[in-house]
Amino acid sequence: MESVLFKGPWVAGVGEADVGVRDGRIALVGRAEAGDRYDRIIEADGCALIPGLVNCHGHAAMTLFRGIADDLPLRRWLEEKIWPLEAKLTAECVYWGSMLAMAEMIRGGTTTFTDMYFFEEETARAAEEAGMRAVLSRGLAVGPNLHNALRENRQLAEEWHQRGDGRITVQLGPHALYTCPPRQLEPILDLAAELDLALQIHVAETKEEVEESIARYGKSPVAVLEETGLFQFPVLAAHCVHVSEEDIGILARNKVHVSHNPVSNLKLGSGIAPVPQMLAAGMIVGLGTDGASSNNNLDMFLEMRMAALIHKGIANDPTLVPAGLALEMATSLGAKALFLEDVGSIEEGMKADITLIDLNQVHLSPRHDPCAAIAYAAKASDVTLVMADGRILLEEGRLTTIDEERTIYEAQRCLRALQEQL
Amino acid sequence: MESVLFKGPWVAGVGEADVGVRDGRIALVGRAEAGDRYDRIIEADGCALIPGLVNCHGHAAMTLFRGIADDLPLRRWLEEKIWPLEAKLTAECVYWGSMLAMAEMIRGGTTTFTDMYFFEEETARAAEEAGMRAVLSRGLAVGPNLHNALRENRQLAEEWHQRGDGRITVQLGPHALYTCPPRQLEPILDLAAELDLALQIHVAETKEEVEESIARYGKSPVAVLEETGLFQFPVLAAHCVHVSEEDIGILARNKVHVSHNPVSNLKLGSGIAPVPQMLAAGMIVGLGTDGASSNNNLDMFLEMRMAALIHKGIANDPTLVPAGLALEMATSLGAKALFLEDVGSIEEGMKADITLIDLNQVHLSPRHDPCAAIAYAAKASDVTLVMADGRILLEEGRLTTIDEERTIYEAQRCLRALQEQL
Repeated sequence: MESVLFKGPWVAGVGEADVGVRDGRIALVGRAEAGDRYDRIIEADGCALIPGLVNCHGHAAMTLFRGIADDLPLRRWLEEKIWPLEAKLTAECVYWGSMLAMAEMIRGGTTTFTDMYFFEEETARAAEEAGMRAVLSRGLAVGPNLHNALRENRQLAEEWHQRGDGRITVQLGPHALYTCPPRQLEPILDLAAELDLALQIHVAETKEEVEESIARYGKSPVAVLEETGLFQFPVLAAHCVHVSEEDIGILARNKVHVSHNPVSNLKLGSGIAPVPQMLAAGMIVGLGTDGASSNNNLDMFLEMRMAALIHKGIANDPTLVPAGLALEMATSLGAKALFLEDVGSIEEGMKADITLIDLNQVHLSPRHDPCAAIAYAAKASDVTLVMADGRILLEEGRLTTIDEERTIYEAQRCLRALQEQL
Repeated sequence: MESVLFKGPWVAGVGEADVGVRDGRIALVGRAEAGDRYDRIIEADGCALIPGLVNCHGHAAMTLFRGIADDLPLRRWLEEKIWPLEAKLTAECVYWGSMLAMAEMIRGGTTTFTDMYFFEEETARAAEEAGMRAVLSRGLAVGPNLHNALRENRQLAEEWHQRGDGRITVQLGPHALYTCPPRQLEPILDLAAELDLALQIHVAETKEEVEESIARYGKSPVAVLEETGLFQFPVLAAHCVHVSEEDIGILARNKVHVSHNPVSNLKLGSGIAPVPQMLAAGMIVGLGTDGASSNNNLDMFLEMRMAALIHKGIANDPTLVPAGLALEMATSLGAKALFLEDVGSIEEGMKADITLIDLNQVHLSPRHDPCAAIAYAAKASDVTLVMADGRILLEEGRLTTIDEERTIYEAQRCLRALQEQL
């Protein structure tokens, strides 16, 4: 693998420094010596070098459904638009939908993404080909299909866990408490114990979900999930919009990690997660886009900006979620949220997941604090180079691992084929 | 002036159509005939053609202060950071800060902007050179300088109103009730009557502003301003974050227009304006960025997205501010908010303010509803061509009227000179 030296960028968490990459890992953060040999030197003066962005929650193949059902109440959105299409999904659809998502994510500086969906081995295959780091799970919901789905999640783990030079991690994906009640969670937890896997689950996304849980179990989803024993495993909880102080106490005590997905939560009318309170309780909170069908982007710059803005606005406190914290949530905290240990910061020995941002833009001028520029003003289009696991995935405006034109064409074809069956 | 035919785009509010431009106005929306002659034909198949975006509130030259003071309480932000720098401002600073703002706005598809600041004739000069449409006012606040400021606003109107082929409009700019109490508003309203000008003013931006008004006058800023007679003139009210139902009644009855500035209101911790309620009351509400020092962008795609997302989220209603309405707020409603009559929609006879968006992007695929794509997924970087008053300001990634490299350099130099004086 090519060794690369980035000369002279501003480095997140460090300041001005050279960054050297060897064998897929960061080998130098500091001043390169005259004698140091690298296969390639990239002049990065005037750029910001940050850890590749980490997208902590999503359903990649749902890019196929981008914009086909906006501005609808959640139930109508699901029942009339999304579920009928999902019922017709094929492996091919998931492959091209996932590839489309990865093209967009790489262009926007994201190197790691999380996924919970169907035909998940297709997303794994696409991630292996695209060169991204991926944390994948097969969505598990109660019903006649749960047994098969659980078998598929096991197969996914057996075939894909730690593959792609360790870039691919498999988790188990119980969808949510309301689709996986306590009794159905049992075999899932048994499998997690057997295979030593983490889990990801949607938690307290809507007010209705919490009300339903209280009506049915007499307590909140968080409290019920604690009782099932789920939290004795490493868990990534998506959303956590409607969590009480007591819920936050339970989540913090159990070291549950959270993916905050502000754009999707707003767009579906779900609400705003109490992120400052979760952070104050010492919790690990990353950021996610959710699926493109409820966003409608996979743009981590937008999530970062939204996280930095919205909590200030609703609490009338402009000091909440400052720029540096928003950037950490999109990088190092995101990697921690996914239980990835050597990803998410620019330090010697870490895996070389790197995003380069060109600061020489009118909308980032005058030059002042690069961290604020990234959190409040930079755009996905300012990303000039993306490297994952030491391999360059985007350079000079071109994706190196994905045939973009074909991907757009095939995704369009897949969507049309699905729609014709309705 | 060159006549131009845009062949085959999706046209906002129309659908697929050709759009012809002659003598600075839209001369055709429909199907071009074989015999129609144009100096230039632009193939726009696969693009969306929308009215140039209209930025209803801002302080252009504050781009100089982008990112120099983030994450601070409003008072410290103003007193420790912004005011000391503003006290040192020079005409040259305002010229280059304004030019930097215009470079950013044009790149992001904005053709019209509003401004309230000092040395406003420099912003007028920059707008004339850059080819943008501008609605300008000299900020007026009580103090020993009010008399001079009012004279400057008169001069601005006498020299610049309707100049630049009618692209430049001058308004009077009483800053806010708390900086222009009723007695000080009197001479401003006299001047508005004399010169037949509209006015722009900040209204109910923060909770503190409303509390102060109630303590001092026994009523809200909106109620006090109504009593001064201000609302007998055409008025553009910026922010209106903390307005009661009664206030909205007053504003609607008086046909006061509003600029909703969601990003700035969030970033400064001011809150969220009750826009759905104002729209339901029949009010004209446009969108604005405010200054780059409290945003930190001048990106109308972000404001559009924020307006479409945030009201859904806080009201738990995903049907609020749908995509089409968000796009209208950024275009036709924005133009109406500024009292511009022949700007803001793609119709024969309207001024040719046009923004072309390339829909052939991974993050806008698959192709479905272009309106949703623009409101929820498109980015400033998808803008491929911008025309104002029939003149092309951006094409093939290049600004045609602004020397971008010099502007970045000069803005940086001006900021440094200001900082050295502190």
